[in-house]
Amino acid sequence: MSTITIIGAGMMGSAMAFPARENHHKVNIVGTPLDRAIIDHANKTGEHLTLKRRMPEGICYLQIEEVERAIEEADLIICGVSSFGLDWFYDNIIPKIPEKTLVLSITKGMLNLPGGRMISYPEHMERCTKKKISFNAVGGPCTSYELADRDPTVVTFCGRNIEELRLIKSLFETSFYHISLSTDVRGVECAVALKNAYALGVSLAVGLSYVREGREFEHYNSQAALFGQSIKEMLRLLQIFGGDSSNISVGAGDLYVTVFGGRTRKIGTLLGMGLSFDEAIKRLEGVTLESIMIASRTARATRELIEAGKIDEKDFPLLIHIDELINGGKLVNIPWSSFETETII
Amino acid sequence: MSTITIIGAGMMGSAMAFPARENHHKVNIVGTPLDRAIIDHANKTGEHLTLKRRMPEGICYLQIEEVERAIEEADLIICGVSSFGLDWFYDNIIPKIPEKTLVLSITKGMLNLPGGRMISYPEHMERCTKKKISFNAVGGPCTSYELADRDPTVVTFCGRNIEELRLIKSLFETSFYHISLSTDVRGVECAVALKNAYALGVSLAVGLSYVREGREFEHYNSQAALFGQSIKEMLRLLQIFGGDSSNISVGAGDLYVTVFGGRTRKIGTLLGMGLSFDEAIKRLEGVTLESIMIASRTARATRELIEAGKIDEKDFPLLIHIDELINGGKLVNIPWSSFETETII
Repeated sequence: MSTITIIGAGMMGSAMAFPARENHHKVNIVGTPLDRAIIDHANKTGEHLTLKRRMPEGICYLQIEEVERAIEEADLIICGVSSFGLDWFYDNIIPKIPEKTLVLSITKGMLNLPGGRMISYPEHMERCTKKKISFNAVGGPCTSYELADRDPTVVTFCGRNIEELRLIKSLFETSFYHISLSTDVRGVECAVALKNAYALGVSLAVGLSYVREGREFEHYNSQAALFGQSIKEMLRLLQIFGGDSSNISVGAGDLYVTVFGGRTRKIGTLLGMGLSFDEAIKRLEGVTLESIMIASRTARATRELIEAGKIDEKDFPLLIHIDELINGGKLVNIPWSSFETETII
Repeated sequence: MSTITIIGAGMMGSAMAFPARENHHKVNIVGTPLDRAIIDHANKTGEHLTLKRRMPEGICYLQIEEVERAIEEADLIICGVSSFGLDWFYDNIIPKIPEKTLVLSITKGMLNLPGGRMISYPEHMERCTKKKISFNAVGGPCTSYELADRDPTVVTFCGRNIEELRLIKSLFETSFYHISLSTDVRGVECAVALKNAYALGVSLAVGLSYVREGREFEHYNSQAALFGQSIKEMLRLLQIFGGDSSNISVGAGDLYVTVFGGRTRKIGTLLGMGLSFDEAIKRLEGVTLESIMIASRTARATRELIEAGKIDEKDFPLLIHIDELINGGKLVNIPWSSFETETII
């Protein structure tokens, strides 16, 4: 039996308690300063306030004041904050983590550096500290609700050291949670980060269809056209940002699950219905969207590479349109014709 | 204005009349001997019996007895039969086609040859005749209903000669029907043929979810896991059968649209619910399924390559399971653990 401390009581971090408890490990969930109500509620009721599920028995729910003890006894720490909480995690948690303790991050994303380069969060974490900590991350299609419901799930854990990855896998592998391993950190993280931007892109067709039909009716030719175009652009971006193209299978699965759930689909649908970005965000009442941030970052890096003459704007018409919608104040006008290509072998 | 003769009055062939008439071409639809009722009904009402849509104005609906005249005046002939009608098309239509006339086939599929090789229908058509006819084909995500509803659609036309492909594209390109071109016939056809098998595979999760929930409720983690595994195996098969891996974007879009519509999803769902293949087919009352044939052919070719030691069975666990369900009398038991891989770079 090992001890797993999850820091951040959001939905995805907390859902990792399901496979961990299935394997009888000791689990601590430590809330960030923003999670006080979730921790209090779980302590009182055994239920998770936002995940809306009864949690497994035997979990210790702790407020942030108890984080040092929970880190100290942990064999593995899960970084369970969203992209918006990463700076807090760097500043407040990483300094407390001993070098021997493994870290597994459920935060998906990339950061863009000057010159159009992008790096993954695990790479960024390594750069943020002088300590020799093993940073690993979870990629692949997994919504927190369905992990909690024990729907069969296949994810990919990535990190630099295959032996450590195997050890981490042994903690979480269950009959409903299956884990591939990869040392191609950049490739896995790039594939799963990109899907945030493109899930918004595919969802535009849902909104277009609603408007045309005057009701909540979906057409799939247009969704599939955007899905195919997403895969085409993601393959190119994987190559540009330095990941192996085989990771497209991880990205495609993750894109699929993201199109069918949650807030990214909602905002894509609203934009597809012809709302401006500001109107759409207002309609969602200030919900913070990681996908928006990641789409913007990817578009910014891509634009820098275009301006430097390293890549061709014509190869990324969907991403450029997504960026125009989010950051350029434009309304939906999908550039269908620019998706057409000629391949001569 | 050109003259386009569609041979076969099925749904997909007939739907091609929508972009063709949008561009003001003369369109003949000639029914096969099995399509007499469709032709009669269209002549009387202007509606398509199985597509269940009002057809564009100005189409000539002809019975098979008038096929020679319709071929003679055509600049382009659409082969609009299903895989099951291809032999009929070879025997009865190809001998009547002049060498100057272009052929565009909407039939998707591959044939397996001895030794685990597979070839595309256009390649097979070329081999079936000594005539120098230009055989081209349509790939990519497009359901007939939604083409008829003018939902924005992006397909790929493939053939050997890019100039002829450009000419064919000019006949069909409209504001709702967008066309990429590729001379990688094997790659495009392989990608779109494979999706038939894998759409059945992804749909298994729909049935599993229905059983677990006791109602028509879908979970997406498991669908996405099967989607990602499909992309992984399709990439490998593309390479094995000689297509460029970039065609995975066509295959992924086509897989997406097939999971959401029609009979392949239905049989996958029934198999996922635990029915045997025979029970599932009985439930669908003898509906003929191209996807079943294509899945079987692909599995047969793959098994031959495995037996010859050219590829590893472990790389195709989903295809093998689909084959066991269809041809081996087995009941659903998705080999989740065998989807796990280790990638070390």
